Amino acid sequence: MKPIPVAVLGAAGSVGQRFVSLLDGHPWFEVVALAGSNRSSGKPYAEACRWVLAEPMPEWAREMVVRPADPRGLEARIAFSALPADQAQDLELEFARAGVAVFSNASAYRRAPDVPLLLPEVNAAHAALVLQQRQSRGWTGSIVTNPNCTSTGLTVAFKALQESFGLRRAFVVSMQAISGAGYPGVSAFDITDNVIPNIGGEEEKVEWEPRKMLGVLAEGGIDLAQVEISAHTNRVPVIDGHTVCVSLELADPASPEAAARALANYQAPPEARDLPSAPRPVIVVREEPYRPQPRLDRMTGKGMTTVVGRIRPDPLFHLKFVVLSHNTIRGAAGGSIYNAELLVAQGLV
Amino acid sequence: MKPIPVAVLGAAGSVGQRFVSLLDGHPWFEVVALAGSNRSSGKPYAEACRWVLAEPMPEWAREMVVRPADPRGLEARIAFSALPADQAQDLELEFARAGVAVFSNASAYRRAPDVPLLLPEVNAAHAALVLQQRQSRGWTGSIVTNPNCTSTGLTVAFKALQESFGLRRAFVVSMQAISGAGYPGVSAFDITDNVIPNIGGEEEKVEWEPRKMLGVLAEGGIDLAQVEISAHTNRVPVIDGHTVCVSLELADPASPEAAARALANYQAPPEARDLPSAPRPVIVVREEPYRPQPRLDRMTGKGMTTVVGRIRPDPLFHLKFVVLSHNTIRGAAGGSIYNAELLVAQGLV
Amino acid sequence: MKPIPVAVLGAAGSVGQRFVSLLDGHPWFEVVALAGSNRSSGKPYAEACRWVLAEPMPEWAREMVVRPADPRGLEARIAFSALPADQAQDLELEFARAGVAVFSNASAYRRAPDVPLLLPEVNAAHAALVLQQRQSRGWTGSIVTNPNCTSTGLTVAFKALQESFGLRRAFVVSMQAISGAGYPGVSAFDITDNVIPNIGGEEEKVEWEPRKMLGVLAEGGIDLAQVEISAHTNRVPVIDGHTVCVSLELADPASPEAAARALANYQAPPEARDLPSAPRPVIVVREEPYRPQPRLDRMTGKGMTTVVGRIRPDPLFHLKFVVLSHNTIRGAAGGSIYNAELLVAQGLV
Amino acid sequence: MKPIPVAVLGAAGSVGQRFVSLLDGHPWFEVVALAGSNRSSGKPYAEACRWVLAEPMPEWAREMVVRPADPRGLEARIAFSALPADQAQDLELEFARAGVAVFSNASAYRRAPDVPLLLPEVNAAHAALVLQQRQSRGWTGSIVTNPNCTSTGLTVAFKALQESFGLRRAFVVSMQAISGAGYPGVSAFDITDNVIPNIGGEEEKVEWEPRKMLGVLAEGGIDLAQVEISAHTNRVPVIDGHTVCVSLELADPASPEAAARALANYQAPPEARDLPSAPRPVIVVREEPYRPQPRLDRMTGKGMTTVVGRIRPDPLFHLKFVVLSHNTIRGAAGGSIYNAELLVAQGLV
Repeated sequence: MKPIPVAVLGAAGSVGQRFVSLLDGHPWFEVVALAGSNRSSGKPYAEACRWVLAEPMPEWAREMVVRPADPRGLEARIAFSALPADQAQDLELEFARAGVAVFSNASAYRRAPDVPLLLPEVNAAHAALVLQQRQSRGWTGSIVTNPNCTSTGLTVAFKALQESFGLRRAFVVSMQAISGAGYPGVSAFDITDNVIPNIGGEEEKVEWEPRKMLGVLAEGGIDLAQVEISAHTNRVPVIDGHTVCVSLELADPASPEAAARALANYQAPPEARDLPSAPRPVIVVREEPYRPQPRLDRMTGKGMTTVVGRIRPDPLFHLKFVVLSHNTIRGAAGGSIYNAELLVAQGLV
Repeated sequence: MKPIPVAVLGAAGSVGQRFVSLLDGHPWFEVVALAGSNRSSGKPYAEACRWVLAEPMPEWAREMVVRPADPRGLEARIAFSALPADQAQDLELEFARAGVAVFSNASAYRRAPDVPLLLPEVNAAHAALVLQQRQSRGWTGSIVTNPNCTSTGLTVAFKALQESFGLRRAFVVSMQAISGAGYPGVSAFDITDNVIPNIGGEEEKVEWEPRKMLGVLAEGGIDLAQVEISAHTNRVPVIDGHTVCVSLELADPASPEAAARALANYQAPPEARDLPSAPRPVIVVREEPYRPQPRLDRMTGKGMTTVVGRIRPDPLFHLKFVVLSHNTIRGAAGGSIYNAELLVAQGLV
Repeated sequence: MKPIPVAVLGAAGSVGQRFVSLLDGHPWFEVVALAGSNRSSGKPYAEACRWVLAEPMPEWAREMVVRPADPRGLEARIAFSALPADQAQDLELEFARAGVAVFSNASAYRRAPDVPLLLPEVNAAHAALVLQQRQSRGWTGSIVTNPNCTSTGLTVAFKALQESFGLRRAFVVSMQAISGAGYPGVSAFDITDNVIPNIGGEEEKVEWEPRKMLGVLAEGGIDLAQVEISAHTNRVPVIDGHTVCVSLELADPASPEAAARALANYQAPPEARDLPSAPRPVIVVREEPYRPQPRLDRMTGKGMTTVVGRIRPDPLFHLKFVVLSHNTIRGAAGGSIYNAELLVAQGLV
Repeated sequence: MKPIPVAVLGAAGSVGQRFVSLLDGHPWFEVVALAGSNRSSGKPYAEACRWVLAEPMPEWAREMVVRPADPRGLEARIAFSALPADQAQDLELEFARAGVAVFSNASAYRRAPDVPLLLPEVNAAHAALVLQQRQSRGWTGSIVTNPNCTSTGLTVAFKALQESFGLRRAFVVSMQAISGAGYPGVSAFDITDNVIPNIGGEEEKVEWEPRKMLGVLAEGGIDLAQVEISAHTNRVPVIDGHTVCVSLELADPASPEAAARALANYQAPPEARDLPSAPRPVIVVREEPYRPQPRLDRMTGKGMTTVVGRIRPDPLFHLKFVVLSHNTIRGAAGGSIYNAELLVAQGLV
């Protein structure tokens, strides 16, 4: 197979760097363009970007000259967007209009009825929404979004339980890593020896996004799932990995053991199962009483697996448990790449 | 007033050190004995104890020779117990039998029907339970306990809302400081860049203790309040200060504004209001969207005040908010001292 | 005494906040103006500034409207400058020309021959340099600077040893707190679970500034002390308090015991001894093998005292020891205030 | 080649776990025994040990029953010792007497004249000391030690510079990771928002061990190199990776550029170059002004490479630079395994 040329938009930021790192050696995709802000464009990537990952910058990226985030003259068929939400709004439209398949981390289009909010292991069928999108918008490109990093792991766990028992209501409280705020992001002065009990705009996303992903593809968009969610979101002094405490009311009550089985046995839809970035396995259930922990468990399944632990009865609802997911791999760059793989495999790109 | 002689049991540990520090210059109490383990007893306190507080060790304590935790020959009328739960079980009994008024941080007797679980600003009236205790146990001493450090701030906030609106159900998720585990306590290897999503035995305490404190003094003990609580407890990399996210169902729904007023206006019962360690004020309501934070707010009211913030509607229950309380001051040593002050003022010691 | 009206320049930043906090209740000074950037000016201080200190914002400051950093119409005789170095360059000149006595934290004028680089407990006599300054510059105001926060504690310790034994050469390696970089300053992503082994421009300051402060006031400026210093500067995950490891060659060799005595007995020059912000004592020598530590010792003497520990023989030079100093109190805002007190007491303002 | 059976002594501790992890899939060695304390022996390893590494416990280790640290009945020819120093003293002797080749992390025998203190990329020739050792001690086993984790990276860098320019004197100041203290090791209460400016016994090791490794094999042991070292050692809140600031006096002065070339071009002795655990490359020189950093650079060369940066002139000696090395891989378990590989390849085991 000839490699598919791809671009990374917002390549100099922390999620952009994750894209560059994860696309290094990708079996299908070849990065042909790194796009950045006016400040960085025109410079070699090694100079334009303060690399913040422990994995070294791939050699091919070092000398690649950063170009403006402009679809004109772009050879890439796919653009991975790590743009900030405000820039994503216009730029992603431009790329899609120019025929590029955009896979976006930004929140700008997550709520658009004709834009898939996609986790292949959860709602691969929603990918087909791009056909409606192309028809209604009259473009040959597409926009596919991945959810907020906290919604991600949560929705994977919810899906497994939804299939087996149905969902009703959930209380979720996150303890989120600082990498989720980008770079430079959170000030060390704010978070050292501290917790910040609020992340602007995050709770609304966590209360809504799972409903779209757990919903059903229909004419004119997605019928939202009827689960109700109350979210509290917190920032804690952790580099990577979002930890979420969940209390869950099911439609059909289940024991912790039955829930653990449903989670551990959950499989991605067949079309999402064998893709290069597919989590292997989708969910790991830890039985040790003090797990999952972000520092120890975030790299499970190369950072793509959702880890669930402490499954136990809840005195008010049915179950309590803890969900952990790598926020910049599964919850951001890795998730977008997995989305692109799904659409390529389905012939939708 | 002649100073009342007091002892500190378990004086070398981290809560013991807080007692020593908070009792320095206390207007009513004078430390006459520091008791410790076999390993430390016989040594001057400065030598027996690895002092871990930023406040310097009081001069009077340095040369005081640590004695065994044994009531024989003790001049103190009051003993503050920072003993580990397993030692507290027997030793606190011994002291009470010997006529000493024990004020304990340990969990050993919190559930005993004739032992007050006491937060003076919440349930000062429960102090009278020591009269039943003395009668039934046939001793002249007493045991009074303070609650678990996470239950503490939570129960203060609950009390204010209970009075105004009644309580039904609550989800609470804690992010607890490492000082709550004593010293050496949590390994730095476990908690650096990490969250530990479990604290052994803690959730049961947080689900039960508020019910006793919010209950009503009756013949034969306390009638538990009917509030139902589901708790998740987590350890985070914070030195001092427990942060708790709460979703609350009230008996009479209230707006966030009404709840904020009820919290901010809450007053301790008259008999608990003017004591030396009384929190001033009982509750501070912060209106900034990113507060309370443990590093910035834990010392509010000298570490005795409960801080509440982010009061907002909850999509499932009625209210969401965040409670912060200093776990080794209000939630441990300072709380016990406040309890002792109440019983002295009431003539119960 | 009628209070002296003072202004704070750069009041919204983290050092500016320290000025506001330390000037609250000051016996001589009354803040009459808070000056800030264009972005913050015109707003009440409580709104213009994201307050990052644990000490609450003083009530009088909350409603004070932030004004531009412009000497016109200013009632203050003294301006405390927490301006960034690039703005300080021009603005501090403007204020001095307008007759204001500027006490600056910025590095802009530290090397100017006619500007005192002042630590009252070290070189109070250098204050008189403002007379030369006024004459040569033809202004009635003045500029007095305080040294870099790492130079500060180091120079206090050096002074005590210089007086007793003379200094020749020193290796110094700092481990500096994140508050030294201002706010937002260091990204949490950079410093969590990490050390940054470089602080731009810092090593040159630490190698030079002590020489000026330990030098002798002469015609035309200060004759630099002949001590030679090699500095390595590092950022570590600590909120406040700079720790410095020192290996020192003396002119007259001294035992660790003699050095400890010289340090512990060191007194500020008489004119600097009884000022409101004078450190009490100037130096504390800790004898415990694991001290000083920033979290435990930074608030010694209200954050104004220099703490020295681990004094021991050095296999290459004469002595090894550790110096700790609070970088935003003694090393920044508190230091400037102490400087202003000295000049007021000397009749130089 | 048939796999060589090996044992891990002290297998349940944190360095023991690193051995188990690094030996998983080793091309030459097969773990046949995990030995532990009385408390853990008799239990399956998964139960005996609180696994603290992010890499999962190898499957083959989970069910392996921990045995006492006793050479009787042991099938292993090689024992990797992660024993605490006090136990190592006797037990390592017992194993060596029983014919086992012991590769030890403990400090017990590092100063013994007939025991190699070995870093294969530095002093592979010293391995031959085991022949003297066997003769003089009359045993068929052997004891080979690896240096203290801070001495390790330092000595690698020193060796490269010694070869090119000769060494005279060095000031070294370490900022050491918490994993260096084992598990549970450092209390989170001690190190959060803090630096501990002392590590018991460490400075003596860092001042002496490099002299043995940089020395020359002679009759009756090693002639120590004549370099003089002054060390300050500090604990900082970093999980893994020791950072060391160095000021160095050479015999033949060299420019930073020449030093960088000597470091980057340094090669291990031929016999140590192609072993499975050999660092590839031995030294990486980073040119970015803010590197090396422990979180970003510790895994260079799978944690076996020494990283040097910030090479610049020193105002007192000749050069200043920063050395970083992974303390539990290159500085502990990985180093011992590399040592064993060298002796096996040389036919000395």
